[in-house]
Amino acid sequence: MITNLEDILSDSAKNMKRSVIRELLKLTQKPEIISFAGGLPAPNTFPIEELKQISNEVLEEDGDAALQYGATEGDTKLREILTERYQKQGLTISSDNLVILTSSQQGLDLAGKIFLNRGDHFICGLPSYLGGLGAFSSYGATPVGIKFDEFGMRSDLLEKTLAKMLEEGELPKFIYVIPDFQNPAGITMPEFRRLEIIAIAKKYNILIIEDSPYRELRFEGKDQKMMFELDNSGHVIALGTFSKIFVPGFRIGWVIAHEAIIDKFVKAKQSTDLCTSPFVQKIAAKYLEKGLFDKNLKTIIEMYHRKRDVMLDAFEEFMPKGVTWTKPEGGLFLFLNLPENMDAQDLFEIAIQKNVAFVLGSAFHCDGSGKNTMRINFSYVDEEHSRIGVQRLAESIKMLMNNKVNA
Amino acid sequence: MITNLEDILSDSAKNMKRSVIRELLKLTQKPEIISFAGGLPAPNTFPIEELKQISNEVLEEDGDAALQYGATEGDTKLREILTERYQKQGLTISSDNLVILTSSQQGLDLAGKIFLNRGDHFICGLPSYLGGLGAFSSYGATPVGIKFDEFGMRSDLLEKTLAKMLEEGELPKFIYVIPDFQNPAGITMPEFRRLEIIAIAKKYNILIIEDSPYRELRFEGKDQKMMFELDNSGHVIALGTFSKIFVPGFRIGWVIAHEAIIDKFVKAKQSTDLCTSPFVQKIAAKYLEKGLFDKNLKTIIEMYHRKRDVMLDAFEEFMPKGVTWTKPEGGLFLFLNLPENMDAQDLFEIAIQKNVAFVLGSAFHCDGSGKNTMRINFSYVDEEHSRIGVQRLAESIKMLMNNKVNA
Repeated sequence: MITNLEDILSDSAKNMKRSVIRELLKLTQKPEIISFAGGLPAPNTFPIEELKQISNEVLEEDGDAALQYGATEGDTKLREILTERYQKQGLTISSDNLVILTSSQQGLDLAGKIFLNRGDHFICGLPSYLGGLGAFSSYGATPVGIKFDEFGMRSDLLEKTLAKMLEEGELPKFIYVIPDFQNPAGITMPEFRRLEIIAIAKKYNILIIEDSPYRELRFEGKDQKMMFELDNSGHVIALGTFSKIFVPGFRIGWVIAHEAIIDKFVKAKQSTDLCTSPFVQKIAAKYLEKGLFDKNLKTIIEMYHRKRDVMLDAFEEFMPKGVTWTKPEGGLFLFLNLPENMDAQDLFEIAIQKNVAFVLGSAFHCDGSGKNTMRINFSYVDEEHSRIGVQRLAESIKMLMNNKVNA
Repeated sequence: MITNLEDILSDSAKNMKRSVIRELLKLTQKPEIISFAGGLPAPNTFPIEELKQISNEVLEEDGDAALQYGATEGDTKLREILTERYQKQGLTISSDNLVILTSSQQGLDLAGKIFLNRGDHFICGLPSYLGGLGAFSSYGATPVGIKFDEFGMRSDLLEKTLAKMLEEGELPKFIYVIPDFQNPAGITMPEFRRLEIIAIAKKYNILIIEDSPYRELRFEGKDQKMMFELDNSGHVIALGTFSKIFVPGFRIGWVIAHEAIIDKFVKAKQSTDLCTSPFVQKIAAKYLEKGLFDKNLKTIIEMYHRKRDVMLDAFEEFMPKGVTWTKPEGGLFLFLNLPENMDAQDLFEIAIQKNVAFVLGSAFHCDGSGKNTMRINFSYVDEEHSRIGVQRLAESIKMLMNNKVNA
C-alpha cells in the first residue's frame, strides 16, 4: 500500500466526510424500524408499467442514439419540454438556458467547481440541505449560516452579514437557498422574502443558487414565483430534478441560468462525466411528451398530501407539550423542535430502541446549532406506519423528558 | 446580468475550455463527411433487442429498487459480477475494492478531486487522453508530459523527470497511463515496461492511475496483465467502463483500488452525484449475468478487428511515402505521423474540404508538441467508407505535400 495516502490527499479530500444521512440510513434499514430519516419518494408512485412500454419504444425507435454518447448539454427534446414547462410558469428562457445534468446534486457540485476557490465563502440557511453544504465544502469553501424565521432565510441578518463581509473584503460567492418546501425545514419563502433576498443579492452583486427539487409538490396554498423569475436579471441559477416528482433512479437534473453561466456549466460538465445518459433522458422525454408525467405528478401530490395530513394529525394527537413542528404546504419534510434544553442526539438513541428513526437537525446546521431539532420525512412510510412511528417517537420524547426531570 | 461573472469564477473555471474534440465533432457532423474524429463505438454493436427484453425484466422484477436512489458504492450484483471478471483475469480483489461510477470520466474527475491541489503536478503521456488532462487540469494541476517510444511511456525519461521533481520538492501526485491500446497512440505497453513504471512509482511512493477503457478489445497478440495486478501493492488505481465494450449510453464506469482509496472515492462521489442510476446498473448486471455481454463482446472484437484491417490495408495502398502509423493490437484508434515539417492543422482544413475528418494529435500533447500527428478512429465508420475516407485523407496529405514543395 502507498504509505503516505493521507499526506497526498488534496485539501478537499482531507475534509471529506461520508454523508451523515446516508450512513445513518444504513443503520436504519432493519425491517422493524419505521424510518422518517431518508428523503426517499414512495416507490408506489413509480410508473413501472408505463416505463416498460416507453423503454421499449425508445430502444425500438431511437436505440442507436439512446445507447450512444450524447451531447453534453443534454437531449434536445427533453431540454425543449422542460423549457416549455418553465415558460408556462412565467420564466422567460429558451432551451439555451437549460442544460441537463446527472442529478441536481451534480448541479451543486458543478456550481462549487465553477465558483469556489479554497478559502471562499458562501451563504446558506440555518438549516440547509446537507448535500449542498457537502458539495460546496468539497471545494474548500466555508459556509456562513443565516438563521431562519417562519418565512425562511432572514433578510435582515443576511444584509447585516453581507455588509460585514464586504467590509472585511470577503464577500461570499453566492447565496444558497431552497425557497420551496425547504429541506429540512419544510418552510416556503413568501414572495416578499424572495424579493428582499434578490434585492440584497443585486446590491452586493452576488449570485443566488435556487435549489428547487420539491417545487412541484404543492398540497395547498398559493404557488410562489421562482426566484429566477422574480429576478430575471441573471443573478439566479436554478436547479431542478426528477428525483422527487418522477423517479430518482434516472439521476436526471437540470440547471437554468443566463447563457454566460450555462456555458461554464457545460465546460465543467464535460470534464466531469461528458454527458448524462441519453437512454434515461429519452425515456423521460417520451414520458413527459405523452402527458403521463403530469398525471402521475397529480397522484404523487395527492398521496403526499394525505401522508402529511396523517402525520400532522398524529403529531397533534401524540406529541407532548413543548414540542413544535412546521406545517409544510408541500414537499417531503417537516421539522420538529424539541424544548431548547433537549438534545435530539439523546433522543435518537432512545428512538432507535423503539424502532423509529429520524435525522438529527444539527446535521443541517453548518454552525453546529439546532441540537434540539429533527428532520422528519413523510413521503416514504405508509399512512398506517406513519401513525405508529409518530406514536413511538412521542413516547421516546416523553421518556427523554422524564429522564431529564429525574436526572 | 451579474456584472462581474468572469471575476467571481473559481481559478479552475477561468481555465476551463470546451473539449476540442467535442466541439470539433459538431463541425464534422455533416452527413457527407467521413469522420475518423470521434471515439464512438459502432451503433450496430448495440444489443437493442436484448436490452428491450432486459429493461422489461428489470422493471418487472426489481422496478422499485431500479427507480429509487441506490447505494453510492453501486449495485451489489453488478459490483460482484465485475469483481469476478477481474478475479478471473488474475486480480486479487473483492467487491469492496470496486465501486461503480457514472462513467470512467467521473473516475478521472474524482481522482482529481481526491488528490490534486491547485499547483500540484501529475505525469501523463505525450500523447495522452484529452479527457484525463481536462479533468485533472480542472483542479488546477499542471501536467508533466513524458515522451513515448514504441512501448508507450518512456521509463528512462519518467525516472529522470521524477528525480528532478523530487529535487525541486514537487513530486507529482500520480502517473496517468492508458496501458492497453492507448488513446490516442494505439500503443500497448508490454509487461516489462509496465513493471518498470510500477517500480518507479513505488520508488517515489506515488500512485498510478491505470485508465483502461479498451482493454477487452484485443484483436491479436498476447494479453498483458493489468498494472493493478502486476503491482498488487495498492499503488495502482484502475478505471474501467462499459462505453467501448457494451454501450456508452448507460454512462457506467468503475474504479478498482485499495480499500483505503475506495473509501475516498465513495466520499467524493457522494457530494458529486449521490449514486449512479440503479436502473441502468441493474440492466447491465442482468445483461452480464445472462452471458450476453461476452457473446456480444466477441462480435464487437471481430468487427473492429476487420475494420482495423481494412483501414491498415487502405493506409498501405494510399498513403504517400513519409507518412507512418501505429498498428494497434486492439482498441479504437491508431496514430498517424506526417513528416516532421508538416502541420496537421493545415491538413485538417484541406481534409474537411475533401469531406474527411480526424483529430489533431497536438490536442493530446500537454506541451503543445505533436503538430505533425493525427488520431484516427476506426471503430465507427463502416468498411466501405473507411477505405474511401483513407483515400481522401491520402489525397489531402499529398496535396499538402505538393503545396509545401511549391511554396
